[in-house]
Amino acid sequence: MSFKNTLNSAHSKWMDAEGPEADIVLSSRVRVARNLAGIPFPHLLDAQKSEDVIHAVRLALVNKEEPELLGGLEISGLGELSPLDRQLLVDKHLISPDLLKNFQSKAVVLREDEVVSIMVNEEDHLRIQCLLPGLQLKEAWDIINRVDDDLEKTLDYAFSEKLGYLTSCPTNVGTGMRASVMLHLPGLKITKHLGGVLGTIVKLGMTVRGLYGEGTEAVGDLFQVSNQITLGQSEEEIINNLESITRQILTQEHAARNALYNDRREVIEDRIYRAYGALRYARVLTSEEAMRLFSDLRLGLELKMISAVPARVLNELMVKIRPAFLIKSAGRELSGYQRDVLRADLVRKEFEGLPC
Amino acid sequence: MSFKNTLNSAHSKWMDAEGPEADIVLSSRVRVARNLAGIPFPHLLDAQKSEDVIHAVRLALVNKEEPELLGGLEISGLGELSPLDRQLLVDKHLISPDLLKNFQSKAVVLREDEVVSIMVNEEDHLRIQCLLPGLQLKEAWDIINRVDDDLEKTLDYAFSEKLGYLTSCPTNVGTGMRASVMLHLPGLKITKHLGGVLGTIVKLGMTVRGLYGEGTEAVGDLFQVSNQITLGQSEEEIINNLESITRQILTQEHAARNALYNDRREVIEDRIYRAYGALRYARVLTSEEAMRLFSDLRLGLELKMISAVPARVLNELMVKIRPAFLIKSAGRELSGYQRDVLRADLVRKEFEGLPC
Repeated sequence: MSFKNTLNSAHSKWMDAEGPEADIVLSSRVRVARNLAGIPFPHLLDAQKSEDVIHAVRLALVNKEEPELLGGLEISGLGELSPLDRQLLVDKHLISPDLLKNFQSKAVVLREDEVVSIMVNEEDHLRIQCLLPGLQLKEAWDIINRVDDDLEKTLDYAFSEKLGYLTSCPTNVGTGMRASVMLHLPGLKITKHLGGVLGTIVKLGMTVRGLYGEGTEAVGDLFQVSNQITLGQSEEEIINNLESITRQILTQEHAARNALYNDRREVIEDRIYRAYGALRYARVLTSEEAMRLFSDLRLGLELKMISAVPARVLNELMVKIRPAFLIKSAGRELSGYQRDVLRADLVRKEFEGLPC
Repeated sequence: MSFKNTLNSAHSKWMDAEGPEADIVLSSRVRVARNLAGIPFPHLLDAQKSEDVIHAVRLALVNKEEPELLGGLEISGLGELSPLDRQLLVDKHLISPDLLKNFQSKAVVLREDEVVSIMVNEEDHLRIQCLLPGLQLKEAWDIINRVDDDLEKTLDYAFSEKLGYLTSCPTNVGTGMRASVMLHLPGLKITKHLGGVLGTIVKLGMTVRGLYGEGTEAVGDLFQVSNQITLGQSEEEIINNLESITRQILTQEHAARNALYNDRREVIEDRIYRAYGALRYARVLTSEEAMRLFSDLRLGLELKMISAVPARVLNELMVKIRPAFLIKSAGRELSGYQRDVLRADLVRKEFEGLPC
């Protein structure tokens, strides 16, 4: 049963670190916003109407045409999950923090490998997401497109010939699409070029956010870059535009890393190996520090200065060190200090089997 | 040939960490100041007269009565040694930094195991030193006493029935003796009791200094405690007094360590293991940081929280990480940055063979 697997493991397909450009692009995400015709947007729904939307989605999943896409999809009401399990879905980037508000009227759909997830009754009736490792925006869009088409055979979407897909918030009207990449940019950060590069991205109509989306701060030198505009561009144009901007950032990040490698080799090696030493031996570890150390270690992998810890282990650890997973694995409430101790234990155990 | 051994190795007998109370007392040192009758004090000597003093000491070493004490003693003019080798003798605590000034008129005598050293023409004609691991003040005084007696059979010391041994600086007149212990006090430091304890020691007529004696700052939580008064007390009284004060400090440091162990176990373990990780993996390491990390690791050994690195390795490393030894082992001049890189290399190699 896929939900049980999801909630007992910190792993998701996007963590495999095997896609193209995986040395900088952690993951690519595409999501589309869809609403059902004739039903008010979620914030105007009472309990019964919310349940109707969930029921409609449930039915659509049964009427599957492409078994390999929809077959593995399973739906669960948010209220059926424990608070920790709900938070774990956020930590794994499968749902947004917003879906946790008034969770009784909401639901989530997951494909077994967690590549596809659908939030039901978040800001829109459906938010269909595809999350893949590396730079795979086109691949993600292709999957979304087929899931969307398949669902549309059953569901009646709110659509205007003039405006496109109608959405709860006007910034999503049109394609209803948001595409994003999660980038690891320590080279630009260390060489102090990050501000300039991110400023340029924003001028090109992109939005830059931290690891957990809107309103979150960048931790571990991880930045989410996404399109701002959904109207007046086709889906393909949005994808191509974001991919082209991403490739420009990659070029600059690579240049920064090469400069570090050539000009300050020992200083960078020192930073990377100290991060390894701290993670391997710490007994008390905050999540902020862990993320900073993961970033340094990830840079070491990317520069091929260290190979002891595979990137997929780091990706999974980013979820494992979060409070929900720690509390779940402890099986009891934990104070902040107890979490810091357990976090250090967990990371240390992960590192102990590795070559030193 | 003992001088060659001394100058090619960072090891000295006092580093063996095997004496009583070695978990806090790194070493015990006793030295006496002696001057030759009828010859002006060193700062008033011309080159020829300085040479006469050195010659007299050389002769006294030949007229040995106790072969096991004086037999292994060997003399060398400071000018016969390279600048690096002279500095290495300072780093190993065998001579004072002052002996390096106007070194052409000065000499040093060493016993093969470096337990006994004699500075010739420092502030006084002779400064006879005995340096032992752990709390062994009486043992050190016993050795000094016999070496002194044996030398006095040949040498005519400046002595006054009323004042005792006459010395260049009036603060040494009388016994001419200075006894000191090198203490590792991280417990008192971390629990913020150090200021109070050291203040009390000073009120009891003791002097507190850093690792390299007068005018040096305390690094690595290492403090040298020595008697201030040389006049009006017998040698035995001085030794007993310092030993008794040292034992009071030991009680307080042990109490502080127990408190840390019981109340803040993870925090202290964290500090100790992070020090281990940093030393094991750093690529750039200043000597200040290395000393701080050694101190943390030493505390870990003393609290039996870690056993990977023996104390004698740390004691030896304290000398090996100093510029003179680094430059000597590199065989060429090194910039500060190059020394930091070489220091990290050297420490890492020392740690690589250890269990991780």
